[in-house]
Amino acid sequence: MNEAALTLEGWYALHDFRSINWPAWKAADEEERAVALEELNEFLADWDQVDEAKQGSTAVYSIVGQKADVVFMHLRETLEDLNEIENAFNKTTFAKYTTKSYSYVSVVELSNYLAASGGGDPMENPHVVARLKPQLPKSRHICFYPMNKKRDLSDNWYMLSMDERKSMMQSHGLIGRGYAGKVKQIITGSVGFDDWEWGVTLFADDALQFKKLVYEMRFDEVSARFGEFGPFYVGNLLDHPSLNQLMKV
Amino acid sequence: MNEAALTLEGWYALHDFRSINWPAWKAADEEERAVALEELNEFLADWDQVDEAKQGSTAVYSIVGQKADVVFMHLRETLEDLNEIENAFNKTTFAKYTTKSYSYVSVVELSNYLAASGGGDPMENPHVVARLKPQLPKSRHICFYPMNKKRDLSDNWYMLSMDERKSMMQSHGLIGRGYAGKVKQIITGSVGFDDWEWGVTLFADDALQFKKLVYEMRFDEVSARFGEFGPFYVGNLLDHPSLNQLMKV
Amino acid sequence: MNEAALTLEGWYALHDFRSINWPAWKAADEEERAVALEELNEFLADWDQVDEAKQGSTAVYSIVGQKADVVFMHLRETLEDLNEIENAFNKTTFAKYTTKSYSYVSVVELSNYLAASGGGDPMENPHVVARLKPQLPKSRHICFYPMNKKRDLSDNWYMLSMDERKSMMQSHGLIGRGYAGKVKQIITGSVGFDDWEWGVTLFADDALQFKKLVYEMRFDEVSARFGEFGPFYVGNLLDHPSLNQLMKV
Amino acid sequence: MNEAALTLEGWYALHDFRSINWPAWKAADEEERAVALEELNEFLADWDQVDEAKQGSTAVYSIVGQKADVVFMHLRETLEDLNEIENAFNKTTFAKYTTKSYSYVSVVELSNYLAASGGGDPMENPHVVARLKPQLPKSRHICFYPMNKKRDLSDNWYMLSMDERKSMMQSHGLIGRGYAGKVKQIITGSVGFDDWEWGVTLFADDALQFKKLVYEMRFDEVSARFGEFGPFYVGNLLDHPSLNQLMKV
Amino acid sequence: MNEAALTLEGWYALHDFRSINWPAWKAADEEERAVALEELNEFLADWDQVDEAKQGSTAVYSIVGQKADVVFMHLRETLEDLNEIENAFNKTTFAKYTTKSYSYVSVVELSNYLAASGGGDPMENPHVVARLKPQLPKSRHICFYPMNKKRDLSDNWYMLSMDERKSMMQSHGLIGRGYAGKVKQIITGSVGFDDWEWGVTLFADDALQFKKLVYEMRFDEVSARFGEFGPFYVGNLLDHPSLNQLMKV
Repeated sequence: MNEAALTLEGWYALHDFRSINWPAWKAADEEERAVALEELNEFLADWDQVDEAKQGSTAVYSIVGQKADVVFMHLRETLEDLNEIENAFNKTTFAKYTTKSYSYVSVVELSNYLAASGGGDPMENPHVVARLKPQLPKSRHICFYPMNKKRDLSDNWYMLSMDERKSMMQSHGLIGRGYAGKVKQIITGSVGFDDWEWGVTLFADDALQFKKLVYEMRFDEVSARFGEFGPFYVGNLLDHPSLNQLMKV
Repeated sequence: MNEAALTLEGWYALHDFRSINWPAWKAADEEERAVALEELNEFLADWDQVDEAKQGSTAVYSIVGQKADVVFMHLRETLEDLNEIENAFNKTTFAKYTTKSYSYVSVVELSNYLAASGGGDPMENPHVVARLKPQLPKSRHICFYPMNKKRDLSDNWYMLSMDERKSMMQSHGLIGRGYAGKVKQIITGSVGFDDWEWGVTLFADDALQFKKLVYEMRFDEVSARFGEFGPFYVGNLLDHPSLNQLMKV
Repeated sequence: MNEAALTLEGWYALHDFRSINWPAWKAADEEERAVALEELNEFLADWDQVDEAKQGSTAVYSIVGQKADVVFMHLRETLEDLNEIENAFNKTTFAKYTTKSYSYVSVVELSNYLAASGGGDPMENPHVVARLKPQLPKSRHICFYPMNKKRDLSDNWYMLSMDERKSMMQSHGLIGRGYAGKVKQIITGSVGFDDWEWGVTLFADDALQFKKLVYEMRFDEVSARFGEFGPFYVGNLLDHPSLNQLMKV
Repeated sequence: MNEAALTLEGWYALHDFRSINWPAWKAADEEERAVALEELNEFLADWDQVDEAKQGSTAVYSIVGQKADVVFMHLRETLEDLNEIENAFNKTTFAKYTTKSYSYVSVVELSNYLAASGGGDPMENPHVVARLKPQLPKSRHICFYPMNKKRDLSDNWYMLSMDERKSMMQSHGLIGRGYAGKVKQIITGSVGFDDWEWGVTLFADDALQFKKLVYEMRFDEVSARFGEFGPFYVGNLLDHPSLNQLMKV
Repeated sequence: MNEAALTLEGWYALHDFRSINWPAWKAADEEERAVALEELNEFLADWDQVDEAKQGSTAVYSIVGQKADVVFMHLRETLEDLNEIENAFNKTTFAKYTTKSYSYVSVVELSNYLAASGGGDPMENPHVVARLKPQLPKSRHICFYPMNKKRDLSDNWYMLSMDERKSMMQSHGLIGRGYAGKVKQIITGSVGFDDWEWGVTLFADDALQFKKLVYEMRFDEVSARFGEFGPFYVGNLLDHPSLNQLMKV
């Protein structure tokens, strides 16, 4: 059976990074800002409902540094759902005061290397479904980065045998398990959807755990020889009041 | 006989990715927007006529994520035809509310590796012509990416013998055939026309099949050792009503 | 004798790629547009005179895709001449409605690998002079790309002996000669002038010949192992009436 | 014990590089400029207080060349603190006259290679704490650059044994010690936080010492074989009067 | 003795590349343009005085192609001096009509490979001082590019022995000496100051000599195996009248 067939996919993901145009926001009159925030809060409420109905999940975090000011991470059933969210958002008054910084399109996946060998349709297994269609946590911090497996002369992941890859991924998984309870990790596949092969989204209450996890993994052969990493984004939870607080000028 | 002479070419292709300037669009007065949409719909109707007359084909899709909002993929007889479309479009009122995101210039091709060995002028063969001058499907999803064959020290595609390349391409083709009925694939050559050597455009009703196809191929030696990939774009079908719906503010 | 001394140089070249700011052009009042076009046509007429006087040559082509809308390729005696053209052009009313897309500074050269072994001052040889100070053709299509010879570990062009390079370049030249009458090729050197080592400008009435020529060459060891390619631009001839036609809105 | 567990972390760091929009600043009326500077001086005073209370530290330097005009380097207890500073700053009138140039998110760290072997909780050791939560010096010059350890085929830092890395880092450390009293060096880790693995911030009264230190290190195997360097920024101390002087127009 | 200690440094250098915003310049009223030029001419006069007092040197050249319109190359005693020049310039009316294109921060250096072995303090040697604090020539053309020495697996300059490097640099120097009287070369070191390790500034009355020198050197092992080159800029001398002439609209 081929590799692709062994991977399980769940909700589609859109990470939507935005910067706030502060001078324009401050220059807007108070009524315009009130309208913009009301609209924004309606969106937040709508997304909460989707979360409660378990038809998707949305996380909102600020981003530290100049790369972006805020990220909306949306999980939904289809690419059409994600597209609809972004288009609806782009038409809001609030969006007028933001600029696009970065985005990432992917789909939650469970890797074939870790797939349970128990028989039956995995999509009937509630543990599997809970991982493929996860409710995003409200941890204090988020970390996102996209990555590839390298294909560089003698360091070519895709030329290894399934057994070699499986054994390396298992030792890799052990490191992750050492952070259980400290870091929640969501892997999304983006082959065919975006410029890297995977997106990694981490959640933790202690941001240092991101550094320790990623650094420890870097010495593992999978990352050391085969990991290729894109930009890293780190941020802080924005619940509804703190997002409204952020926008106060 | 040389490699170039063995390749067959059909219609020229222009992939024209655009972002919509939503704040400007919303700020335009209703009459201006009506005029812009009317003009846009005339273009869509013109392109439909070209499609019906089998003098070319045009597909319109939205793009998920911030890279672009919409792509117009045009197939036409000549580079002059494509240039005329883009210039005419650029002069419309609608274009004023878009910004350029990415474009790709190429020509539909049938690779020499797969060419039928049957005698006679292949351009007299209706099956060949149908593949070189294809009507673009109305699948729910599109996926586009440009690519090269690598020339990196011992991983140099262009230093392999014709036989080595042929045998690898045939096994590669077998994977593609496994997705028959699920993914329609159009290969366009862009050596001498744009920054990568090929463009790959995929159409499918189930977007997951893009991921599965591209991922499965990545383990095939042709991609694993020799594939070099540019940016990936994925999107949803925009028929005329849904494009008009998208532009409603 | 060193390599540099064996190369012959002729006219300096400036490829000046521009995009048209269509919304601004359309928003300009009719008189402003008329003034801008009049000025542009005067420049075209001046450049024609230089061509007729054989003191230089200028080609004007549209560019397909979003990279640019038009390219002015100027050949002149000195860098001062080229600088003067670009500054004069930048001060025109027409230039106000364009944005800079890309440019390339180089000088027409005849490679030492192909230099005639016949004695005497080559600059007295009218065939050599005609190639170093060429009148640019009015072919239907143009193709431009810059390139390097690779210096990457065991694939290092500059560490080969003169004999190795000469023999490879001669087989390379044979491919080019196979396109005689179909593709006219102008090689310009840019070591010390711009970011790549050479510029290649091709002219043809059938744009497919660009693809066939560049693709066939890619299998040749000189390109396969040692070629490193920059962006590719392809376009269509703009004679004076068609340039004026293009600007009609 | 794993590598990550052996590293000690202190204050989080935000390097915030800004350019000044001089035309806008000059065009502002005098009252607006006065308000902007008053606000800026209040921020500087607040940051001074944090410094005095040893709850963090802030350094302000100009940057030479076009990459930026000024850098604010903030050290604080948490990512939330840093985010709050940047958001508060972004809302000021002064910020309206700046543009974002570059930023870097990291955390002060003491490498496991150099960690004291003395027993006990290192965070109880005042020498360790002073290095993890340093007061930034008022040296005449600053130098900042981000860097990675290479993972390139046979030059793969992360595939070396701990002993090999330790011995190389110790010889590397010796070079640094040769600049004691001339260059103060603060290493911040950014694995999981930003696009490179470390940030290096140097302070010196004689800027030439930056060049001599970094150049001497480049011949050391750690840098020669394994160092990968990002952009370099160099600048001059801006105390409060000289910052106010800079903004005079 | 270490490598860094063997290098001699003189004046700091700032290469400040600017583009002219021609539409804004033309739209300015005549009085504004007159004020701007007067201010610019005052700066030119001030820089001339610094030159005459041998406290520094400034060269002004136009740049051919779209990368920039003009470069100001300043040599001064300290980084503070350079920063002051750029800030003062940025506050002028003239600067409002320019945009930043590129800049480079470095310091004039004499390489340890070429250092005279004669005893005594080299800074007491007037020949050495003249090379470290040079008056910039008024040649017709300038050429600037930054460069690195490669550190790529088996092509790693910094892993060679001092003897190997010395012998290669001496043969390299011989090529340069072949251009004596034709090309004047100023090497500036930028390790710790900017993104490349060195800047190379060439001056010549015949621009072709730039091409011949750089091309001939490329076959030398130092460049062939170890040279890594950044962007190239080439331009023409702008004395005060020709700079004023350039700005006439």
